[in-house]
Amino acid sequence: MEKPFLRVMSADQAREFLRIFGPLSTEEVSLEDALFRVLSQPITAPEDIPGFNRSTMDGFAVRAADTFGASESSPALFRVVGEVLMGEIRDVTVKRGDAVRIWTGGALPVECDAVVMVEHTEQHDDVTLEVLKAVAPFENVVRKGEDFRQGETLLSPGSRLRPQDLGLLAAMGCLSVRVYKKPTVAVISSGDEICPVDQTPPPGCVRDINRYTLSAMISEAFARPVWVGIAVDELEAISGAIERGVREADAVVISGGSSMGSRDLVIEAVQRSAGGQVLFHGVNVSPGKPLILASAALKPVFGLPGHPVSAMVCLEQFVVPLIRRLEGENTLMPFLRPTVEAVLSRNVPS
Amino acid sequence: MEKPFLRVMSADQAREFLRIFGPLSTEEVSLEDALFRVLSQPITAPEDIPGFNRSTMDGFAVRAADTFGASESSPALFRVVGEVLMGEIRDVTVKRGDAVRIWTGGALPVECDAVVMVEHTEQHDDVTLEVLKAVAPFENVVRKGEDFRQGETLLSPGSRLRPQDLGLLAAMGCLSVRVYKKPTVAVISSGDEICPVDQTPPPGCVRDINRYTLSAMISEAFARPVWVGIAVDELEAISGAIERGVREADAVVISGGSSMGSRDLVIEAVQRSAGGQVLFHGVNVSPGKPLILASAALKPVFGLPGHPVSAMVCLEQFVVPLIRRLEGENTLMPFLRPTVEAVLSRNVPS
Repeated sequence: MEKPFLRVMSADQAREFLRIFGPLSTEEVSLEDALFRVLSQPITAPEDIPGFNRSTMDGFAVRAADTFGASESSPALFRVVGEVLMGEIRDVTVKRGDAVRIWTGGALPVECDAVVMVEHTEQHDDVTLEVLKAVAPFENVVRKGEDFRQGETLLSPGSRLRPQDLGLLAAMGCLSVRVYKKPTVAVISSGDEICPVDQTPPPGCVRDINRYTLSAMISEAFARPVWVGIAVDELEAISGAIERGVREADAVVISGGSSMGSRDLVIEAVQRSAGGQVLFHGVNVSPGKPLILASAALKPVFGLPGHPVSAMVCLEQFVVPLIRRLEGENTLMPFLRPTVEAVLSRNVPS
Repeated sequence: MEKPFLRVMSADQAREFLRIFGPLSTEEVSLEDALFRVLSQPITAPEDIPGFNRSTMDGFAVRAADTFGASESSPALFRVVGEVLMGEIRDVTVKRGDAVRIWTGGALPVECDAVVMVEHTEQHDDVTLEVLKAVAPFENVVRKGEDFRQGETLLSPGSRLRPQDLGLLAAMGCLSVRVYKKPTVAVISSGDEICPVDQTPPPGCVRDINRYTLSAMISEAFARPVWVGIAVDELEAISGAIERGVREADAVVISGGSSMGSRDLVIEAVQRSAGGQVLFHGVNVSPGKPLILASAALKPVFGLPGHPVSAMVCLEQFVVPLIRRLEGENTLMPFLRPTVEAVLSRNVPS
């Protein structure tokens, strides 16, 4: 009898099977709740940002040309005609040789095209200013639309929102965004030797470690673990637990069945379920070789080894990419967090 | 007039000031809620783990000495006297030349001291077994107490609990642990030019970005942001916001005051408050030079620059270490997450 799924494949080949499972549906969340959620819509700039020419220094807004040739030994003389207060557009008329006091973040008067840093000036009285250094046009200025222009795509669907992305959304006045739903992952521990943490293990038994390590790793991957329970090594128990998991969550993870016989129980249970199908059994990773991926009611079901370290490796390498996929990220990479990837990309020698 | 706090110091010198602020009080949380919380108690092993000699393979438990000299060409003959089922201590008597069927995770009968992998055997009938390869004593066995011994310290106070640590606690039957309380950090945005995200900025104004970026980074550092509001550049407003922050949270972060004048407002507001004290003003980092650390009612108050990137850098470099300290970690290192450090420690060339 042919058993094609018993062929041992590479981790990359195995992860290709995850493409069968598409992203979940979407929901609208407020900006406060959007951290590390995954966008399902593109974000385009509704307006130019900044919306005005903006000073990046405390100093004086001027026409740059009026400063040309100025130096410490030969300062240019200016007349101070006013001050731009924060949060106002100053409609003072700025003629040649005029300067306007301005602060970092302030809006340049329309006639001005540069800012002289206060450190490069000497103010003699309320109206008399010496400029000790020439500025080029738009020096110390962020121009209107320089951060981004109206209509520009800023964030693509599939982006996981980092703190700086929330800042970008805030800058554009996005109060809420459409994101993929957070995946739920049912967690089942199996094995006759597994006892709940609140019990003293009978002789030959051990407490259920995987419930806690795997649930924590699922949380760390931004999904929500759903605890189903401990199933003994019997077809009915395994079947029942998987069925409940499929009903209550978007994916199922069953660890254990440390003996060869009980691994077959997971396969048998899946095959008995409606539309159940084993996608692969066995991956060329160590630890984690006996990994099973199946599909029941179109949802992914992972059979992980029972040893806590093996189960953690399989979860990181195969379940986390699945979670990312369910949440709409366009990647099959295992990851812990976006920040880890950022760190890696800075630090791995090329 | 001497202004000692105006001396610009290094980032490391500045972080030394954070030692003034001690850890928060503690609380008991269940194992399910303990992920990434910081232990306030040492965890010692209440018992030997594993509690019995445990097989790491599917195969046959034997007395190792009986296999000495066995090879493919000259197998050792054994009598199969039973099977150890998962989760049971088998009290079968194992004599010289006896073997007992055993599965990964199973408990070795007392007379046995090794396991022969099933791959290195040939079973001829129910009771007749050939062993094709000798095993050394305790080969394929995890010995009682090998993971850890009763009384051994496994986790120290100040450890942030990772998924694998929760597994360790589960293995020992810890249903709950005592951890430091999660710090709360009040977030204030200041500046006349700052407008709430749900409003169209008047001319010369910009939307409040820092509320979202800083709150998200505080969440990412496992603390809880408490939004206070936007304060205009007036002493009363800044004072009121800081006082409310100090009342409602364990630390206060006020960003903005982009002009030199408004930075002084934060200093003035702190000095006016009961027991208020400026600890430093100015750090040799770029961006982020004008950073202020003060203390009001014995709680830390940070004055961050208003520019979103500068504020983020200061938050990562100075507020995150403060959060770690408030939560009982014995470090002043900025970090994003424990996993980032783990990645860094693996990847930074020495």
